[in-house]
Amino acid sequence: MKDDTANQMRARRLGVLTQHELIALVHADCPVCRSEGMSAHSQVTVTHGDKSVIATLYQVTEDWLPVGSVGLTDQAWERLDLEDGALVRITHAPPLASLSFVRQRIFDDGLTDDQIRAVVSDIVRGAYSDIHLTAFVTATAAKPLATREVISLTRAMIDTGERIDWGVTPVADKHCVGGLPANRTTPIVVSIVAANGLLIPKTSSRAITSPAGTADTMETLTRVDLNRDELRRVIEKEGGCFIWGDAVDFSPADTAIIRVERALNFDSAGSMVASVLSKKIAAGATHVVIDIPVGPTAKIRNRGQARDLADLFRTVALTFDLKLRIEVTDGSQPIGRGIGPALEARDVRAVLSRSPDAPQDLRDKSLSLAGAVLELTGKVPEGEGIARAAETLDSGRAWEKFLAICKAQGGIFDPPVAKYQRPVNATRSGRVAAIDNHRLARVAKLAGAPDDKAAGLDLHVRIGDTVRQGTPLYTLHTESIGELSYVLDYVKSNPDIIELTR
Amino acid sequence: MKDDTANQMRARRLGVLTQHELIALVHADCPVCRSEGMSAHSQVTVTHGDKSVIATLYQVTEDWLPVGSVGLTDQAWERLDLEDGALVRITHAPPLASLSFVRQRIFDDGLTDDQIRAVVSDIVRGAYSDIHLTAFVTATAAKPLATREVISLTRAMIDTGERIDWGVTPVADKHCVGGLPANRTTPIVVSIVAANGLLIPKTSSRAITSPAGTADTMETLTRVDLNRDELRRVIEKEGGCFIWGDAVDFSPADTAIIRVERALNFDSAGSMVASVLSKKIAAGATHVVIDIPVGPTAKIRNRGQARDLADLFRTVALTFDLKLRIEVTDGSQPIGRGIGPALEARDVRAVLSRSPDAPQDLRDKSLSLAGAVLELTGKVPEGEGIARAAETLDSGRAWEKFLAICKAQGGIFDPPVAKYQRPVNATRSGRVAAIDNHRLARVAKLAGAPDDKAAGLDLHVRIGDTVRQGTPLYTLHTESIGELSYVLDYVKSNPDIIELTR
Repeated sequence: MKDDTANQMRARRLGVLTQHELIALVHADCPVCRSEGMSAHSQVTVTHGDKSVIATLYQVTEDWLPVGSVGLTDQAWERLDLEDGALVRITHAPPLASLSFVRQRIFDDGLTDDQIRAVVSDIVRGAYSDIHLTAFVTATAAKPLATREVISLTRAMIDTGERIDWGVTPVADKHCVGGLPANRTTPIVVSIVAANGLLIPKTSSRAITSPAGTADTMETLTRVDLNRDELRRVIEKEGGCFIWGDAVDFSPADTAIIRVERALNFDSAGSMVASVLSKKIAAGATHVVIDIPVGPTAKIRNRGQARDLADLFRTVALTFDLKLRIEVTDGSQPIGRGIGPALEARDVRAVLSRSPDAPQDLRDKSLSLAGAVLELTGKVPEGEGIARAAETLDSGRAWEKFLAICKAQGGIFDPPVAKYQRPVNATRSGRVAAIDNHRLARVAKLAGAPDDKAAGLDLHVRIGDTVRQGTPLYTLHTESIGELSYVLDYVKSNPDIIELTR
Repeated sequence: MKDDTANQMRARRLGVLTQHELIALVHADCPVCRSEGMSAHSQVTVTHGDKSVIATLYQVTEDWLPVGSVGLTDQAWERLDLEDGALVRITHAPPLASLSFVRQRIFDDGLTDDQIRAVVSDIVRGAYSDIHLTAFVTATAAKPLATREVISLTRAMIDTGERIDWGVTPVADKHCVGGLPANRTTPIVVSIVAANGLLIPKTSSRAITSPAGTADTMETLTRVDLNRDELRRVIEKEGGCFIWGDAVDFSPADTAIIRVERALNFDSAGSMVASVLSKKIAAGATHVVIDIPVGPTAKIRNRGQARDLADLFRTVALTFDLKLRIEVTDGSQPIGRGIGPALEARDVRAVLSRSPDAPQDLRDKSLSLAGAVLELTGKVPEGEGIARAAETLDSGRAWEKFLAICKAQGGIFDPPVAKYQRPVNATRSGRVAAIDNHRLARVAKLAGAPDDKAAGLDLHVRIGDTVRQGTPLYTLHTESIGELSYVLDYVKSNPDIIELTR
């Protein structure tokens, strides 16, 4: 501990891909760890030069890992920027002072600005294990964050991430709170808005609870893991982009929190507002349109919930001087046909390229949101947004802009097509009375989306359609027989996902 | 998926000790996993013969693990009872239906008996990751379990574990809710009670939030990881025992929950009551004395909290027809001198062997609790318990019983002594006004307790003592220089753990 040569060990790349957790393996007989009193499952700091990470230490008793070596998982390896055989230093991770604030949040009061900042800082430096992170996320879901806590969380997330200043105003952005499968309006809105000369540095997430996020979808069409310099180049050239937010690291705390929410398949209003607005502000946005789909099986179930969420968005936005427009939209059924990254990408392309079989609902909703952005930023007068958006789309200028952005991001690809396709047919004739968004999303996820880009489903009906017995309601797309049989089991035990009345 | 020869892989022992998480490593090019659509961080079921475990799958890209092999951490290896090269089958872990109940518990209502049973069953079969477990534990701490939920949780824990019926009544037990460092009365109470001819099949936990649990302490004196058959043999021979509860698996769900609580350094009333009573009932106890220490820096801060907790204990005990006596005791300072496994063991031995320098407070409290057990079980009339307990101790019969139990459990050892000892001296003269139990426990943990058995501290003062500047308040015991410097940093920045007034 006294000098830099103590506790040095030779680093070895294990080639183990973990989704997130950084793991360090050392031999149980390792004198460095013995003298420091480190035991299985200690949190340790691994340092190389001026870089360091906090990792969970596991002990190895077999000799495939020699005494004096430390095996590191890939994420740790990359964050330390190591080469094989490099010397690293292992020390106790510093105590986690902010954990008392997590306990306070569970048992007693809300947290102050400073306390939330301490928690977020510790999350960002990787000091929270899954257990610590989950306790914070669950506590703020079970006992919802107060408005002032949401503001503190938003500020802490902005301050612990990277921020871009474009030096101009307006800078537009849009966001959907989610909960509706498909509904892939973002690439269309961005193309229309950018084609009108506005800046819209849109970053998107991967799926949290859904079968695809915009980043998952766009990844089947172009490169999305651009860094901040590349983001800047694309925006300066084309005005718009569709990139994966995590790669630009606007809010590393949010990335960690979302990973936990994904495993639990929920997100709560307070953390969602902080997550969304912190990333918009970090990306330099000044004018943001928020889409809140409302429906009985959407994330937001009724108008009252939508109003509360909208109020929270507005209050927090006001604090940070962000202009906001909330669009409460129909969330009774999916928007578009494909559900899953590649299938949604196909719909997006169909609308933009004015294909005759493009889904009309996706076109209409995208025009409405693009119109809202054009009006909010003052690009067109109130009431003229949709017309201008339609004109941009119909003239082919949005399609050209889309292709230009893809090219600037690294080229345009063809989305993959799944190996196995299997229709799910109506077991009787009738009229479609309701579609369960939640369980339909589950079907697409069981089929393999979003990890398998081509997986998901194609929805063939909308509410109000009449179907005959034996005609397909939707078609499953999977990449493996295993997953196909897995999802068919679920489909069989859930025959009412698409509800038919006589 | 169709037949037993599909998805077979050769098992390889990695020799990696994790504290709990079961990990399976496979090469990224592994066709079995590809065809099943398994990706990094999938939950998979690993099956061998009639045994199976659920593990987290990580992918390996380096060739130290060949395609077709699955590397398993030690805990997975042992639970599957494998030999090197054995064939195991890897399949998708079944979907986690009970997770919707965890979400329900976070966002909406309490849970029904069946819902709690479903959660507990999934925990027991290892299907919950740290994230899932922590969400359940945190939700039931942030929004406390209703009494009927505590009853459901207790019942589910009993039903998913093993249970012993002794065929006689009374069967005695005792438990302390904790929060007070040292306070190692259990081995003394068990020895006195068993010496009076009663059955007291006491199982103890390791430390949850403290520097030592009774199991940690007794492990420095005898073997504590006895299985159920061994437990039965010891009880039938000697009437009492001091063994580690996890080894007999009375409540595997509780073991998992406590691991999370330990990482978060808290436990909540509802889960504590379910945890304690389920294990007592599973161990066949009919009459139980509960010690609730109350003090400003103990776990239970005031009489009101103690009353609420006592009420919850009584209501749940009544449901399961368990006779209970609650002793609310003084929790203003540690009981005994040593804090840490070996140091507490030394005090226990001193009291039992009637050593002249035995801590008087530990003796008095142990006699009081043993007396309560003797009265509750009807062994002696009300009011005569303490006298009988004192007689048993002073006659040497308790010490003989203690030695006999240790012998039956596997022999008696000498507790280890720490390599480094360093006094922490009074920075001025004065009277001891208060002792911060919580921070004193933290000092002992930073010194290495309970992982290092010999680590901890020896407390030299009690409230009301007068000390002179430069005399030692307590002595730190550590096994490494690293930990010594670590704990000294904390001690220096917390000079008021022992509060002195002029």
